[in-house]
Amino acid sequence: MSDRIDLSEKLAKFSEHWSPRTIAQFNNNDVMVVKVKGEFVWHKHDDTDDFFLVLKGALDIQLRDRTITLGPGQMYIVPKGLLIEPTGTPNTGDVATAAPRKTA
Amino acid sequence: MSDRIDLSEKLAKFSEHWSPRTIAQFNNNDVMVVKVKGEFVWHKHDDTDDFFLVLKGALDIQLRDRTITLGPGQMYIVPKGLLIEPTGTPNTGDVATAAPRKTA
Repeated sequence: MSDRIDLSEKLAKFSEHWSPRTIAQFNNNDVMVVKVKGEFVWHKHDDTDDFFLVLKGALDIQLRDRTITLGPGQMYIVPKGLLIEPTGTPNTGDVATAAPRKTA
Repeated sequence: MSDRIDLSEKLAKFSEHWSPRTIAQFNNNDVMVVKVKGEFVWHKHDDTDDFFLVLKGALDIQLRDRTITLGPGQMYIVPKGLLIEPTGTPNTGDVATAAPRKTA
């Protein structure tokens, strides 16, 4: 059985951007932390919702028709099949995301 | 389509303890915020893992053989079927939990 998971501790273990780390599994979902900076590619997930919770910094999630801006303690769930482009600012922005990361 | 969700904003809307509010759904899971104080009943969830992320205060999750203590930014996933008793301190303790709340 696993121990408690400290998000800051997990995030301190790496510095690369757009390189999510799986830290737990919940009902067959991966729980991941990721550091973001600059833009990520437009993509969508056909088979899963995409859950974002910002821990530090800011994240813009660009949808086709609008942009969702998240700060610390704010979350957004992108429904499956929706095209998005996440953009992180500033350099220190940390994001926890609970969906498997894959580009399509 | 929904907007961003601010956890503090959601938590400011109620003051009852052990009364989780569903604020979003993710891959058929309920995302809930809850305020806790004192002890909750021993229970288990046969069909779902129980995801806890503490936002403020402290939470003790008592398992049969040990206690998991969580502070802000710390999380724990109780595997389905496991018997637990959550205990919150102090009065201001806020917890976000992503599993449907039911006692069994």
